Amino acid sequence: MAFVQFHGFRSLQFPSRDCMFNPIRGHTEICTFNNRCYAIKACIKKPEQNVLLESKINSVLDSVIWDEKGLAVAIAQNVDSGAILMQGFANREALASTISSKKATFYSRSRSTLWTKGETSLNFINVHDIFLDCDRDSIIYLGKPDGPTCHTGAETCYYTSIFDSLNKPEIEENNLALTTLYSLESTLARRKEELSAPEQGKPSWTKRLLLDDKLLCSKIREEADEFCRTLEENEDESRTVSEMADVLYHEMVLLIRRGLKFEDVLEVLRCRFTQSGVEEKNNRKAKSVN
Amino acid sequence: MAFVQFHGFRSLQFPSRDCMFNPIRGHTEICTFNNRCYAIKACIKKPEQNVLLESKINSVLDSVIWDEKGLAVAIAQNVDSGAILMQGFANREALASTISSKKATFYSRSRSTLWTKGETSLNFINVHDIFLDCDRDSIIYLGKPDGPTCHTGAETCYYTSIFDSLNKPEIEENNLALTTLYSLESTLARRKEELSAPEQGKPSWTKRLLLDDKLLCSKIREEADEFCRTLEENEDESRTVSEMADVLYHEMVLLIRRGLKFEDVLEVLRCRFTQSGVEEKNNRKAKSVN
Repeated sequence: MAFVQFHGFRSLQFPSRDCMFNPIRGHTEICTFNNRCYAIKACIKKPEQNVLLESKINSVLDSVIWDEKGLAVAIAQNVDSGAILMQGFANREALASTISSKKATFYSRSRSTLWTKGETSLNFINVHDIFLDCDRDSIIYLGKPDGPTCHTGAETCYYTSIFDSLNKPEIEENNLALTTLYSLESTLARRKEELSAPEQGKPSWTKRLLLDDKLLCSKIREEADEFCRTLEENEDESRTVSEMADVLYHEMVLLIRRGLKFEDVLEVLRCRFTQSGVEEKNNRKAKSVN
Repeated sequence: MAFVQFHGFRSLQFPSRDCMFNPIRGHTEICTFNNRCYAIKACIKKPEQNVLLESKINSVLDSVIWDEKGLAVAIAQNVDSGAILMQGFANREALASTISSKKATFYSRSRSTLWTKGETSLNFINVHDIFLDCDRDSIIYLGKPDGPTCHTGAETCYYTSIFDSLNKPEIEENNLALTTLYSLESTLARRKEELSAPEQGKPSWTKRLLLDDKLLCSKIREEADEFCRTLEENEDESRTVSEMADVLYHEMVLLIRRGLKFEDVLEVLRCRFTQSGVEEKNNRKAKSVN
């Protein structure tokens, strides 16, 4: 078993088994040693390819414009929902560790140490890709969280709306930053919760749909048909968009009716259409077998 | 006409007309003066309410944990697609200006001045809400961009994939950071482009759908029906998710077939379901009337 340390990596351990280390596609495990988190590469075969990869990684790390403290902003984003999970800072080591381990890793300015999100909570952010911005001083860790990201237990760290604080008498701190589809999903979920309370006045359309499966399904079929007819009858493009909005809304209601999340649908799509999705699915199968 | 300067704002001009200034709901226009961008509030009536609002804004600005340079990270995110558009820094003035003008405004560290994204390109980011993270030192400007955000003309500043750089022989800088749905959309759009090239071998399912409207529409109706039946026949929840993925994929193909973007659908949904969407729609109507 060989231990290799190269510039930018905290530690890489290469048991001499019959396959090649690849930080992108390769098998990686995380373990802790002396309270620090290490990426263990399962195996290595072709050292010349590894040297090439090491050189490429160093070249990427060199290309980042680190600030005077050696840091760059690192933003973790949910690969399915697009939600911004958290923002921290990365130094060269943290980025190298993230490339290697595919777990979002940051540099803690208060503790002057690396930290892998999830090393305590086990809510890791499994990184599918990493992006640099045009100035090469800002990083996105695009990944899938194992659970809530915020230390408070909230799904993301962004749950304080300034406009709410200004508009409402009391500052509320439970309003997640949601983009359009998830804002709609949240509204639909609220309507479902409200069903248990006595109805005052005429129920909303959403509530009627939630209470009547026959109505809901007939609307989905009807809206899907209308959506198709915008193509078949060569209607204006704005009609296609509008009908797609109609059918999507009704489909979202059915998901909520069954207690499901749109993010689950996206995960299925990702597993079908991307390599990382397929890998993730296989890893889960392997886990469940174990 | 009165000019009012209060702590945190660059400049606020209140013509004495018969309505109240409200930075959230109020009518705001941007103009430039001495090469700087100013928010003009259209009107003001009730000074006591304005003082209360001013006090609330100052309280929010006081609550942000500014770093030793008086800055916090500010991330601009597309309210519909969830795409991270850019990342900059905000100081107290920049955040106050964004609250007031609803145009994403940053502090340029290189030029030591405020800058409103779009003041040169006119590609403003119209802010619908602003979020603080749990540590109150990181900000999301959740908004709708008027056009491409990056100075290169790219939709966002994040188009350099590190994993691509490591996996591909040449570093490509044209791979936008896309979440699942937009990654799928991009793949579908590529399949459509490929239709003009001579087909080698059996065309993919997506291409067959793109070439055959009858097939595409029959599949959408069929998948919508199967999705409904998962509820009607009380099938397993995973079947509902899977069928929703099927119907969504086919619907996305129809959108691409017509040259439309999923983001357009989300904009329609936002206009229907949120106040800011309705406002935006009305503002556009007003603009087109003018």
